[in-house]
Amino acid sequence: MRAVDIIIHKRDGGELTREEIEFFINGFNRGDIPDYQAAAWAMAVLLRGMTPRETTDLTLALANTGKTIDLSGVVPVAVDKHSTGGVGDKTTLVVEPLVAACGLPVGKLSGRGLGFSGGTLDKLESIPGFRTQLTTDEFIEQLRSVGLVLSGQSADLAPADGKLYALRDVTGTVQSIPLIASSVMSKKIAGGANAILLDVKVGHGAFMRTLEDAHELAELMVGIARLAGRRAIALLSDMNQPLGRAVGNALEVKEAIDTLHGGGPEDFREHCLEAAAYLLLLGDKVESVAKGRTQAERALGEGRAWERFRKLVATQGGDVAYVDEPQRLPQASLVESVPAPRSGFLAEINAQVVGETSVLLGAGREKKTDPIDHAVGIEILHNVGDWVEAGTALCVVHANQVGRQAEARQRLLEAHLWSDDPVKPLPLFYGVVE
Amino acid sequence: MRAVDIIIHKRDGGELTREEIEFFINGFNRGDIPDYQAAAWAMAVLLRGMTPRETTDLTLALANTGKTIDLSGVVPVAVDKHSTGGVGDKTTLVVEPLVAACGLPVGKLSGRGLGFSGGTLDKLESIPGFRTQLTTDEFIEQLRSVGLVLSGQSADLAPADGKLYALRDVTGTVQSIPLIASSVMSKKIAGGANAILLDVKVGHGAFMRTLEDAHELAELMVGIARLAGRRAIALLSDMNQPLGRAVGNALEVKEAIDTLHGGGPEDFREHCLEAAAYLLLLGDKVESVAKGRTQAERALGEGRAWERFRKLVATQGGDVAYVDEPQRLPQASLVESVPAPRSGFLAEINAQVVGETSVLLGAGREKKTDPIDHAVGIEILHNVGDWVEAGTALCVVHANQVGRQAEARQRLLEAHLWSDDPVKPLPLFYGVVE
Repeated sequence: MRAVDIIIHKRDGGELTREEIEFFINGFNRGDIPDYQAAAWAMAVLLRGMTPRETTDLTLALANTGKTIDLSGVVPVAVDKHSTGGVGDKTTLVVEPLVAACGLPVGKLSGRGLGFSGGTLDKLESIPGFRTQLTTDEFIEQLRSVGLVLSGQSADLAPADGKLYALRDVTGTVQSIPLIASSVMSKKIAGGANAILLDVKVGHGAFMRTLEDAHELAELMVGIARLAGRRAIALLSDMNQPLGRAVGNALEVKEAIDTLHGGGPEDFREHCLEAAAYLLLLGDKVESVAKGRTQAERALGEGRAWERFRKLVATQGGDVAYVDEPQRLPQASLVESVPAPRSGFLAEINAQVVGETSVLLGAGREKKTDPIDHAVGIEILHNVGDWVEAGTALCVVHANQVGRQAEARQRLLEAHLWSDDPVKPLPLFYGVVE
Repeated sequence: MRAVDIIIHKRDGGELTREEIEFFINGFNRGDIPDYQAAAWAMAVLLRGMTPRETTDLTLALANTGKTIDLSGVVPVAVDKHSTGGVGDKTTLVVEPLVAACGLPVGKLSGRGLGFSGGTLDKLESIPGFRTQLTTDEFIEQLRSVGLVLSGQSADLAPADGKLYALRDVTGTVQSIPLIASSVMSKKIAGGANAILLDVKVGHGAFMRTLEDAHELAELMVGIARLAGRRAIALLSDMNQPLGRAVGNALEVKEAIDTLHGGGPEDFREHCLEAAAYLLLLGDKVESVAKGRTQAERALGEGRAWERFRKLVATQGGDVAYVDEPQRLPQASLVESVPAPRSGFLAEINAQVVGETSVLLGAGREKKTDPIDHAVGIEILHNVGDWVEAGTALCVVHANQVGRQAEARQRLLEAHLWSDDPVKPLPLFYGVVE
């Protein structure tokens, strides 16, 4: 077998065999197949596509390039949740404590933010002392004893996926649904998940811009899970406006804490309860989504989800004083309320622009090696469809640099579009794929 | 400007600007744009295509990565000829002396063989002493004084083309008509040609398998010449059977010498006279192809083309004793005539298989660094459409290794397909694009 023949096979629209896919991915992982061949192959895959069978074989080939975690002796059903990434998406911080409080142990391997989309690890590191890099042994031990873990993915899980992703990032081959699906699922499978809740974001603040693309990605990932002997449910959720109010690391942690105390923005709370209900169903804790929903509402209302979050912080070395009194979390020096320039109905709040503005302020990174500022960020005070009176607060900028503050204000005003006529609110979810 | 955005622009089917193409090619040539980005770009170009304008800009960008030769003070019109490569294609050895004998100075930069397709330099090196690596100054001086030069391309002409070709070879991106066209034309333009005769081979012994592809490539190259302020004519010529009889280096030189003496296979002689007529037209030596044809026939008949060839050999250090007495050229130790296994009409002589068999015997190379054996090769004694009597000679194998000889015999028998019914002979040419 020769790498160039496999590239040509895909270039000409052929369906690759499992042997060809394994040969290519293993060779690439070992360094026998150079980056330039993998880059040409990835472009051919992007433009020619892959069948669900090929994508499943690719997923398993990527997963098998490193060690895989076996959680079968640790928990009855190893559940996991994955969001395809959005703006203001601090769901994990609430959903995982919620389901843990309902008696479903959950260990999650999370990522960092890149581009306009945030990452759970960055958010958690707003809490002084919180350790996000656990060893696999620590992960398993904490999952067993505490029933709740949030950690970074170690480099030895699906290493070829990390290598391929870095290459795709610089060769224009990110936007391929089979490559996105196999990247997500390879990490979940290597991480030992048996049942996976996929939160597929759709809209201008997401990687999937259209419902059609999001649906295709969701179908493909659910199909991969099935073909690989796992189970998955995908929620198609809105990312045409930021989720909740806060965008920025410490700001999002504060919003999560508010929500765990029964407060928080309504859209965000609703999203978390719904996701928790599906996770409980996937974890065989309940027989229906409705029953999962009831349990999750109870765990939230009785403060048990909050207790779990607090325990998580303490177990992973975080100083609980900061979550007990969230005003102690990093605060920006320049906090400015931006007034509405006119009265009207909000027609659009461009989530991508809001995400990019938070990166501009220092809350996210352009490149993987950029440092981040946990204190800065944005509060978006309204939703699409709201009537806003001129001069009242539209959003709040939390900045640490005067120049950035001014630019952020300008961009946020541009991100809000107005209408004189009433505008329908956006739905939270567009559908479920299972 | 960022390389990744240019890749994405082409990936999404956009038309690249001249600035984008120059940025990409210059960056690649300097090493600022790595191979993996160029590989992804080449695959996107292969699958998305390029307009004639883009292909012309690419051609000029490649040509301008190195020095360019200016022949304007040396010859009235700098003519050149390029064949897209075939089996038994020793045309250059006859056509260039022919037109030089008609008073049109011609200097040609030739290549080496790769895969099943031979190269002029390898053939010339069958002649002891013949120097194929002239400096640019030597090239120009000989063109001025002798009016005939055949030399290898120096590495400083269109260096990015050589680099890109090597990358395409291992990334499945050879078979792209815009990339093939720009590669050919960049070298011709860097070499100083004002008027170019393109011999576009079509058939199973050529890179272009279908007349449609060959026509597209021809149109594109003629269009590039026009857009770049040059002139080109393309002949679409047959490569569904080997051209002439001989395949292999010294064997082809002998056949060229026979032809220059007025003998040689009829199809090959006819091809050379026709090509010479078009070159004379391109070089403004005659007003019509018919007049060019008359002059070329006269130069051949009067022995002037042969004299020019002899002079070329002597000037470039070759021992003329070997061309005066061609039996002194390298001879294989095992010469075996292969008898026809049956009587019948020849329906096909697979040129690619014949070319591959000559590589097997040692006449060509799989990799650029392989050594070659000038003595070995094949004589194909019939053409498609001929009636051949069982037991009479079908072809002759010239080998230096017994095992290879047997394998070659077998493959050559397989390359000949038979028919009980009469078969139409193949045309020499399918058309002219100008």
